[in-house]
Amino acid sequence: MTGTVKIFDTTLRDGTQGEGVSLSVEDKLKIAQRLDALGVTYIEGGWPGSNNKDIEFFIRVKDLKLKHAKVTAFGSTRRKETLADQDPNLNRIIEVGVSVATIFGKSWDFQVHTAIQTTLEENLAMIFDSVRYLKQNGLEVIYDAEHFFDGYKSNPDYALATIRKAEEAGADWIVLCDTNGGTLPHEITEIVKVVRQSVATPVGIHAHNDCELGVANSLAAVMAGATQVQGTINGYGERCGNANLVSIIPNLQLKLNYSVISEEQLASLTGVARYVSEIANMHMPVNQPYVGAAAFAHKGGIHVSAILRNSSTYEHIKPELVGNKQRVLVSELAGQSNLVFKAQEMGLDFDTNNQQTKQLIEQIKEMEHQGYQFEGADATLELLIRNAYGKLEEVFSLESFKIMVAKTMNQPVLTEAIVKVRVHGETCYNAAEGNGPVNALDNALRKCLLQYYPGLQNMHLSDYKVRVLDEKDATAAKVRVLIESSDFQNTWSTVGVSENIIEASWQALVDSIRYALLNQTRAASKQAESKERLGLVNH
Amino acid sequence: MTGTVKIFDTTLRDGTQGEGVSLSVEDKLKIAQRLDALGVTYIEGGWPGSNNKDIEFFIRVKDLKLKHAKVTAFGSTRRKETLADQDPNLNRIIEVGVSVATIFGKSWDFQVHTAIQTTLEENLAMIFDSVRYLKQNGLEVIYDAEHFFDGYKSNPDYALATIRKAEEAGADWIVLCDTNGGTLPHEITEIVKVVRQSVATPVGIHAHNDCELGVANSLAAVMAGATQVQGTINGYGERCGNANLVSIIPNLQLKLNYSVISEEQLASLTGVARYVSEIANMHMPVNQPYVGAAAFAHKGGIHVSAILRNSSTYEHIKPELVGNKQRVLVSELAGQSNLVFKAQEMGLDFDTNNQQTKQLIEQIKEMEHQGYQFEGADATLELLIRNAYGKLEEVFSLESFKIMVAKTMNQPVLTEAIVKVRVHGETCYNAAEGNGPVNALDNALRKCLLQYYPGLQNMHLSDYKVRVLDEKDATAAKVRVLIESSDFQNTWSTVGVSENIIEASWQALVDSIRYALLNQTRAASKQAESKERLGLVNH
Repeated sequence: MTGTVKIFDTTLRDGTQGEGVSLSVEDKLKIAQRLDALGVTYIEGGWPGSNNKDIEFFIRVKDLKLKHAKVTAFGSTRRKETLADQDPNLNRIIEVGVSVATIFGKSWDFQVHTAIQTTLEENLAMIFDSVRYLKQNGLEVIYDAEHFFDGYKSNPDYALATIRKAEEAGADWIVLCDTNGGTLPHEITEIVKVVRQSVATPVGIHAHNDCELGVANSLAAVMAGATQVQGTINGYGERCGNANLVSIIPNLQLKLNYSVISEEQLASLTGVARYVSEIANMHMPVNQPYVGAAAFAHKGGIHVSAILRNSSTYEHIKPELVGNKQRVLVSELAGQSNLVFKAQEMGLDFDTNNQQTKQLIEQIKEMEHQGYQFEGADATLELLIRNAYGKLEEVFSLESFKIMVAKTMNQPVLTEAIVKVRVHGETCYNAAEGNGPVNALDNALRKCLLQYYPGLQNMHLSDYKVRVLDEKDATAAKVRVLIESSDFQNTWSTVGVSENIIEASWQALVDSIRYALLNQTRAASKQAESKERLGLVNH
Repeated sequence: MTGTVKIFDTTLRDGTQGEGVSLSVEDKLKIAQRLDALGVTYIEGGWPGSNNKDIEFFIRVKDLKLKHAKVTAFGSTRRKETLADQDPNLNRIIEVGVSVATIFGKSWDFQVHTAIQTTLEENLAMIFDSVRYLKQNGLEVIYDAEHFFDGYKSNPDYALATIRKAEEAGADWIVLCDTNGGTLPHEITEIVKVVRQSVATPVGIHAHNDCELGVANSLAAVMAGATQVQGTINGYGERCGNANLVSIIPNLQLKLNYSVISEEQLASLTGVARYVSEIANMHMPVNQPYVGAAAFAHKGGIHVSAILRNSSTYEHIKPELVGNKQRVLVSELAGQSNLVFKAQEMGLDFDTNNQQTKQLIEQIKEMEHQGYQFEGADATLELLIRNAYGKLEEVFSLESFKIMVAKTMNQPVLTEAIVKVRVHGETCYNAAEGNGPVNALDNALRKCLLQYYPGLQNMHLSDYKVRVLDEKDATAAKVRVLIESSDFQNTWSTVGVSENIIEASWQALVDSIRYALLNQTRAASKQAESKERLGLVNH
C-alpha cells in the first residue's frame, strides 16, 4: 500500500481552540517556520474574518519566505441571503493575500436548520457561491464539509449534494470533517469510499479525538482513498483535540509506507513536537506516542534486561527515526539492570555485586519512598550515582540561609535572601534580592560562587515545577520541586522533596548548580583533549 | 452489532509500569474497590512472583469482599528446563489464593531465541505445562500471548501453535497481546479473525498505545470476535501506556451497542477516572476523551452560541452518560456568549449590552494577556463576574504581610508569617508558623478570620500548582499559581499571577477563601429556605 499524502496543519487555527492554548502572533510565526521545515503542505494560519490578531499574522508571514508550505486562511461560506462578493468574511480571505482559501460549510440537514437556520436549498447556494467566488479570485480552494459524517448518517443524499455543489463550483479539495469526533473508524472507511465514488475531486479528512480515535480515523480515511490529512501538532484543539499529526505522520510513513515527508524531516518530529509545546506553554505528556519522553522509556527490570540484549524486543520502531531516544527509568520496580544502564550512559563501569551499588539501590528506593522521583530528574540521579562512586567533589556546603518576604498594600513585594556558604574552605556571607524566594536564594548563592566558578554565568533556571504529594493530608503535605536549568549547550532537571517548599527548592537548586559545574568540568577536559590532539598545547 | 464484552483491568499491574505511576498497597486496595463498583470482570492485582508488595495486596484484598470482580494474579510460564510444579513463580500464583491466574508466554520465534534463549519446542512445552499445572490446581487460566501480532507476522504457524498449546492445556481465555503497541487496526482485524478460526477458546485483546491506536486496536479486535478487553484506567502503562479502558468502555457500549457495564456504572466513569488519577498522583489531561475537564468544554464563540441552541451540534454524546458535564471556557477567543453561559450557571441575568459587561470582558482579556488562565480557575472567574455586578461583599482586606524563612545546616527550616488585615472594620495583626510560606500565610490569615467565619475550619488547600510563564526569560519570569481548595461538599480552583511566587500565591489564596465564604453563605441560605418550607421556623 503506497501513495502520497499531503499534510494540512491547523495548529495555528483549530489548535488554538484547545483549552490552555493561546498563541501570540510572534508564537504563530515561529511555529509556522518549524512547520515549513517539517514539510507540511498547508499551514492554516487563522480566521481573518474572526479576529485581527490573525490578520496581522497573514501580513507578517509573507516576510518569512516559507520554502515549501502554502499558507491558507480559514472562513465560512457566505451568510444566508447575501451575495458572496459582499460577504466581509470571504473578502477578508481574499484581502489577506493568501494563495489558498479553506472554507467550511454545512453538510448536516439538522445543522442547517438549528445552527444557521435556513433552508437546505439556500445552504447549497451558500456553498456554491462561496467556492466559485474564491475560485474567480484565483485562489486554490479547500472545502471543509463540516459535520460530514453526522450529516451523512442523518441524510446521505443531502450530505453528498453539498459536496457535489462544492465540486461543481470548482473546489480543489473536499475535506470530510468529523467535527464532533464521534465517528468510528469502520464508519469512516465506509463513508469515505462512498464519497470517492460520488466526487472526482481529491478528498481529505479532518478528524477530532473525542473517542480517542482521531489518529485511527485519519488512517482509515487514507486507506479508503483520502489524500489529505488535517490535524494539529500534539493534537491540540477544542475539547479532546484534533487528530494528532505527530502520530499520524510516522504511522503513515513508517507503518503504511505512504510518502509524506522526507526522512530528515521525520527525524525532526520530536523536536518540532516539543518546540510547539514549549511555545504554546503546554505540558507535553511524557507518554505521548513517538515523541514523548517515555515513548521509548523502559521501567520494569525484566524488560530492561531484554532491551539490553535487543531493543526491538520492546520497541516498535527505532526511536531515532522520529528524533526520539531510548531511556531507562529508575524506579522501585526496577532491577539493578536499570541502574547498570544509567551508569553505562555515564561511562561508569558498574559492578552490581559490590557494596556501593547495593547501598545506592537501597538509598534510591528509600528516597523514592519519601516521594522523590528520578524519572524527571536525571541530573539528581547522576549526582547520586557519581557520589556513591566517590566521583564527585563537594564544591560548596551550606551553613545557613534566611529569606524575608514583605508586602504592604499597593506596594510590590520585597524579597531578600541571605546565604552563608563554605566555598573552597572559605566562608561566604552574602545577600541578594529576587522576584521570589527561590530566585533570591539563587542570586545570593551565585554571588558567592561566581568568583570561583565564572562559568555559572551562562546557566539559568528555565523551569520550576511544584507538586504537592499526598494532597489528602494538606496541612503537612510534602512537596516535590522539579527545577529545570539550561546553559548554552544543555538542559537538565533536578528534584527536591520536603514538607517545606523552600527546603525542597533549595535541594533542587543546589543539585542544579552542582550538575552545571560537573558539565563545565567535562566540557573543559574535552576541550583540553582536543587541543592536545591538535597540538595546540605547548610542552 | 451486539454481544457481551468482559473488561480485564490491569491498572494495578501493567498500569504501575507507567512513568510516574507508583501505588502503595493502600492505594491499590482503594482502587480495586472502585473498579469492582465500576463493574469490571477481572482485576489484575500484581505479579506475586516479582515483588512482595503485590503479595500483601492479594492477602488484604480478600477482606474487601468485592461484589462482582474476580481478582487475578499475573506471572510468566515456567522457566525453561524446569518442572511447572517446582516453578516458584507459578506456585506464588497458587499460594496467594486467587481464583484466576493470568500467565504470559512467548508467541514470537525471535523472542524465544533472544529474550528467553531456548528452543521453539521447549517454549511450547513451557506454555503447555504451565497452563495445565494451574488448571490442575483449580484455577481459571487466562493465557496472555505476549508479542502475538509481531510473532504472527514473523512466523504465523509458530504463533498459532503456541496458542493451540495453551488451548490444549485447558486455558479458559487466549489473550492476544500487542506488547510493543506497533500493530495497526486493519492488521488486528485480520489476525484476530484467523485466530478465531484456529482456536475454539474465547479470545481477548491486550493493546498498547505506542501508535496512538490502543483504543482503535481494542475495538477492531472486538469487532473481529474478541470478547475480553484488557487495559488500564486512563491508559496508564509502560512507554505510551496500555489501551485506555476509560475510552474503550463507552465506545463499546454507547457507539457499538455491546453490553459491558450497567448504565449507572457507566455514569460513574468520570468519577473513577479522576479518582484513580488522584490516587496515582497523576495529572489528568483536561482533553482526555469522555472524562477530561475539557471533553465537553466549548471555547470558540461561534460554537458556544450553537451549543446554547442545541448541544448535540457540537457534542457526540450527552456528557451525563459518562458522568461528565458541559463547560464553557472563557478566553480571548470567546465571544460574549461564553460569559453569558457562565453567568447563567451562576444564576445572574447578564445583559450583554450594559457597561459592566463590556468592562468585565475588557478586564478578563487584559488579565489573560498578563498570564491569567480562568479555564482552570472557575472560582476566581465567578468572583470577578459577581464583583462586576456588585454581588460580592468585601469580607476582608490586606494591610501587610511579612514572611521569614530561616535554615541552618542540619536543622529543619523555620517558616513564619505575620499578617495585618482589616476584617469587619477592625484590624487584626497576627502571626503563625507553617511548613512553607504559603501555608504560614494561610495559617496566620485564618487566625484572623476564624473568629468571624468559623465555617472556614472545614476548608483546606488540597493542591498547589506553580507554572513558570515565558520560561525563556527566566530571571524576570512571571509565575502562575493555581490553588485547589476543598471542604466537605465542594472543590474549587483559584489563580494568581505575578513575577513573585508569594504574591501570586497570596492572590489565589485570598480568592480561595472569599469563594469558600461565598459557598457557605449560599449553603446557609438554602438551609434557611428549606427550614422555611418545612415550617421549622417559628413566626
